[in-house]
Amino acid sequence: MPSFTVYKGSKDGSIVKSKTTKPDLQDDQVLIQITASGLCGTDEHYRTSDMALGHEGAGIVEQLGPSVKYLKKGDRVGWGYEHDSCGHCEWCLSGKETYCPDRAFYGVADLDQGSFASHAVWKESFLFQIPDSMTDAEAAPLMCGGATVFNALRMYDIQPTDHVGVIGVGGLGHLAIQFAAKMGCDVIVFSGSDSKKEEALKLGAKEFVAVKGQKELNISRPINALLVTTSAQPDASVNADWPLMIPAMAPDSTIFPLAVSGGDFSIPYQPMIQKGIRIQGTVVAPRNVHRHMLEFASLHKIKPILMEFPMSEEGITEAMETLKRGRMRYRGVLIPGKA
Amino acid sequence: MPSFTVYKGSKDGSIVKSKTTKPDLQDDQVLIQITASGLCGTDEHYRTSDMALGHEGAGIVEQLGPSVKYLKKGDRVGWGYEHDSCGHCEWCLSGKETYCPDRAFYGVADLDQGSFASHAVWKESFLFQIPDSMTDAEAAPLMCGGATVFNALRMYDIQPTDHVGVIGVGGLGHLAIQFAAKMGCDVIVFSGSDSKKEEALKLGAKEFVAVKGQKELNISRPINALLVTTSAQPDASVNADWPLMIPAMAPDSTIFPLAVSGGDFSIPYQPMIQKGIRIQGTVVAPRNVHRHMLEFASLHKIKPILMEFPMSEEGITEAMETLKRGRMRYRGVLIPGKA
Repeated sequence: MPSFTVYKGSKDGSIVKSKTTKPDLQDDQVLIQITASGLCGTDEHYRTSDMALGHEGAGIVEQLGPSVKYLKKGDRVGWGYEHDSCGHCEWCLSGKETYCPDRAFYGVADLDQGSFASHAVWKESFLFQIPDSMTDAEAAPLMCGGATVFNALRMYDIQPTDHVGVIGVGGLGHLAIQFAAKMGCDVIVFSGSDSKKEEALKLGAKEFVAVKGQKELNISRPINALLVTTSAQPDASVNADWPLMIPAMAPDSTIFPLAVSGGDFSIPYQPMIQKGIRIQGTVVAPRNVHRHMLEFASLHKIKPILMEFPMSEEGITEAMETLKRGRMRYRGVLIPGKA
Repeated sequence: MPSFTVYKGSKDGSIVKSKTTKPDLQDDQVLIQITASGLCGTDEHYRTSDMALGHEGAGIVEQLGPSVKYLKKGDRVGWGYEHDSCGHCEWCLSGKETYCPDRAFYGVADLDQGSFASHAVWKESFLFQIPDSMTDAEAAPLMCGGATVFNALRMYDIQPTDHVGVIGVGGLGHLAIQFAAKMGCDVIVFSGSDSKKEEALKLGAKEFVAVKGQKELNISRPINALLVTTSAQPDASVNADWPLMIPAMAPDSTIFPLAVSGGDFSIPYQPMIQKGIRIQGTVVAPRNVHRHMLEFASLHKIKPILMEFPMSEEGITEAMETLKRGRMRYRGVLIPGKA
């Protein structure tokens, strides 16, 4: 029985090379040979789970199920967090299948497929064709990181005339700067120190603030939308805490907390009310928005800045350690066959 | 020099009868003889300040400044929280003058005018004509309480097909139920006990939940918009805390915290993100929305349920005590000359 390689988490956090049986392709299933996978902060959360890791996949169509309609062998495709939904609920019918209660997505404990692998089998309807203008490695980090920041920037009424703040220059932040700038927004970046200033300005930011030690922000104009792309929620430890940021927010503005973290979200109450600020929870993009994200990135040559690692137990481990130590510049990709 | 009576707060919280000099009317200023004033929870916050209290005013136009254009003597008018704005800033120019940084509003420490008074002088442009269908006393509580809940229900994309939750049946809550029901929404009410159930259903709610002691909510369908109209933020003490309410929220739903309170707003982080919930800070309605509120209330016969008190030191004190003890059913109004 044919099988393919997947890399799994394990109880002690070590990466384990394993095998998944290749199913006979049913319906619109597609077998993909993986050529690149992004590494996302969320993968770290599942490192101690017995499941195949990775959800920023890119590869080449190798085999087609009997009812595949649009893809053909050799096509370059990517996929992200979601890989199925019911198609019948209110959310599926309104183009928001990321809220489908019966959706299948990365992070379920018994998942035997991921993008840290040699191959994967997914439904055609959850695969995205990769634009010619980008390589597989460039496309992979857009499948979750890119889709997450694009969804926030696109689906909540941010205007080209807005002042958009980005806290953190990392995997998500360095993409958010590019997308927002290309949407015409005036982008301001908040980071701990000045070390990423030059890069942030090159990516399209007009203003950069090193927040460490600041008691008050002196910025050009109030912020209409603020994307929190750090791995932890704002607090004293990440330098850009709410008492510092709130006075910089415009009335009727939006804060997008994108960090994956536990606990409570806490923010000073009266300033939030009096300025009519909204805190907007967001998830990754539904497919229609995801397609626009790829088109937009292609049109405007928006690309992640990559650090490449081999797709192997050692390579994945090294990539995860690099991310954990805050040394990734700015998104890790795992490449099969890389030395 | 002519003057009129105002009732002020004072250091020890007692209500003090005082005098304000009536200015010569300039520009579009209007002298109003007050016939009713609502009592709002916010007034309690200023009870220990040396300022004239009250910001839900209604009365009769008694005298006109030289450039008044639309009002005439004898007209019935009301006013609320805001009484001036710059007219030039981004927010004034976009019909959101409640965010004007130079606006004048209730709550500034040296305010020598309020609606707990015999008269008031305000600019014509911040006065609202009271529809014929309602009495002055009925109109007064709409000027802040009504405008606050209407603004939340009207300006943030709540749809007639939405399931709208209201936490608390009080001054704001009993108006929110009526407005939401008349907008076509399916209204569900959350209250501590069953004591206000009959009233809530009569006001237009389809469902009522006594939350005290509940560990899990068993409701007809998820909530798309939740208005928190209690005087304190949800926590264990008001029975409807977030761990109880969040599982009842629909994806892509909105929470409106309308309580006036200090401290931090705290909510479980991951559930908020994963459901794409937004927390929407809101203030009272700008004038264009306020006018629609009055028209809508008039058309649909939406009226506050009133408890009347005399406009006097004793009457105001008694009304404030009634509100503080949670005994108001459902909005207090102060009436000059009432025995």
